[in-house]
Amino acid sequence: MADDSARVLQGLQGLIRDDLERTNRIIMEQLTAEVELIPTLGSHLIAGGGKRLRPMLTLITARMFGYRGEKHALLAAVVEFIHTATLLHDDVVDDSVTRRGRATANSVWGSKAPVLVGDFLFSRSFQILVDHGDLKVLKIIADCCAVISEGEVMQLVVSHDLNLTEERYLQVVERKTATLFAAACRIGAVVSGRSPEEEERMFRYGLMLGNAYQVVDDALDYSSSRETLGKGVGDDFQEGKITLPVIHAFQQGDGEEKAFWRDSLAARDHSPASLARAIALVRERGSLDYAVSRARAFAAMAKEELSTLPPGPERDALRDLADFSVDRSY
Amino acid sequence: MADDSARVLQGLQGLIRDDLERTNRIIMEQLTAEVELIPTLGSHLIAGGGKRLRPMLTLITARMFGYRGEKHALLAAVVEFIHTATLLHDDVVDDSVTRRGRATANSVWGSKAPVLVGDFLFSRSFQILVDHGDLKVLKIIADCCAVISEGEVMQLVVSHDLNLTEERYLQVVERKTATLFAAACRIGAVVSGRSPEEEERMFRYGLMLGNAYQVVDDALDYSSSRETLGKGVGDDFQEGKITLPVIHAFQQGDGEEKAFWRDSLAARDHSPASLARAIALVRERGSLDYAVSRARAFAAMAKEELSTLPPGPERDALRDLADFSVDRSY
Repeated sequence: MADDSARVLQGLQGLIRDDLERTNRIIMEQLTAEVELIPTLGSHLIAGGGKRLRPMLTLITARMFGYRGEKHALLAAVVEFIHTATLLHDDVVDDSVTRRGRATANSVWGSKAPVLVGDFLFSRSFQILVDHGDLKVLKIIADCCAVISEGEVMQLVVSHDLNLTEERYLQVVERKTATLFAAACRIGAVVSGRSPEEEERMFRYGLMLGNAYQVVDDALDYSSSRETLGKGVGDDFQEGKITLPVIHAFQQGDGEEKAFWRDSLAARDHSPASLARAIALVRERGSLDYAVSRARAFAAMAKEELSTLPPGPERDALRDLADFSVDRSY
Repeated sequence: MADDSARVLQGLQGLIRDDLERTNRIIMEQLTAEVELIPTLGSHLIAGGGKRLRPMLTLITARMFGYRGEKHALLAAVVEFIHTATLLHDDVVDDSVTRRGRATANSVWGSKAPVLVGDFLFSRSFQILVDHGDLKVLKIIADCCAVISEGEVMQLVVSHDLNLTEERYLQVVERKTATLFAAACRIGAVVSGRSPEEEERMFRYGLMLGNAYQVVDDALDYSSSRETLGKGVGDDFQEGKITLPVIHAFQQGDGEEKAFWRDSLAARDHSPASLARAIALVRERGSLDYAVSRARAFAAMAKEELSTLPPGPERDALRDLADFSVDRSY
């Protein structure tokens, strides 16, 4: 499956190679600031091997709709800035040590600078959008940022809480992750001047894609090797995040297993032995398969939204991307 | 002087009582969110006895220019949101324990939630401004937020650095503090539809007022009682912030004194004995008086900007405010 995943991403990149290069140039230009630490810290993460998935959504959506201008590259850069700002703050909030296989900004510079550089990236994003002058795109991004922060607070509130339902978990996923995928897609439609219906379809596509992506991400935390994901296995467990594999394994578990989950996650025993037991239980109870099946359902809904949109290589790539979001590294 | 200070603030509040009440109502309305922790944490700080200095600047500027509408209250609420967001992030970055005489949000809820709620307040501010629909105000706030975060990063970079010059210190002050004062004033002129020259005068007034205010704030950290400021004396010293009293005392100090500053601030010995010595040296070297004289010069420049603006009780209040920014609690 890993080969297929690489093929999907490469296919996507091939369709928008020039756009993506332009976006990368804009990102580096817009990172400039009076204080050298801002571009240094910002580019540590931005240049550090991200997939550029979210800006690619803006670019490829615009191309699918026949957009021939260059403004989409600027907006795609904003999408990546917003993503980077949330990652910087996330890693501080989670005390994360690695991301994308490299040390996090907070483990290099401490937690102070990433908070402030994240703020800078949010602000610079709005500066770019104001200069762009489109209130509609500004609204999409402002709404998106508010929803993301609500989702992050929500996740914080429910951490360590084994009473978390699947429904509530999915609300967190939609807010903290899928919203930016959806905004990225909607912006691609807006910059192309498409109808409200097409905008809405792309928004829904992004939302379902993002849900699938995050649910799989949460499953991979209990299954993949450190190398594949570029971050540690068991991070969520260590941080007391209650994700779908845990919700499922806890609900399916017998009394002794339920007690284990309570003793480890709720009571914050995150020892290596506990993690090993957690991974074993998630596997035994079929909880990874369950999570992947939920993700596959989201991916199917994402593809469904594409059915009436302009056919061609871009739409095919978006369809493949929905599959990739489930199949990657799995 | 304390009585005079109270009189100035009360006089100001009296002129815009209804506006300020409307602003406070809007603040509480706009704090609502799906997750209860957001209004809870947000109102802990917002309802916790701030002076509302920055939103008052927007309100009173608009009234001075004869504005008779109600939109200025909404924009003043945004100004307070931005201020609150920066305070939440500041207190996390500085590990501060008290603010305005109460526990900081991070000392009540830990550092995670304030980072995210700060992000929410930034986002909500932009949502409000997008709904307001005025790109000019959006630009003022977006630029302001970018400059503030640059100033904060700059401050972080120069912390513990006794080579910091007065000039560079003042650059930090202007960026991290005065910029929002200036934006608040400019917005009051913009909402009133005044000329670019009047806008610029109010911006300059706010910038000079903010500089005076922050320079005095930094001096008070080496002089006032904990009760007066609502925060601890010596906070800046503990955090290794190099402020004007220290720059002056270091430059004026003899070899032994210079060694003390290096041993304490640069080498991070923040013991109570060190703090006591620092306070004594700052006093002996006349560094507080020096800082206040610099602040007074900024206040004079602020008042100078007002000279051609519409006379009346509002302009008088702005003039008194410039004096207050120097004389408060001193």
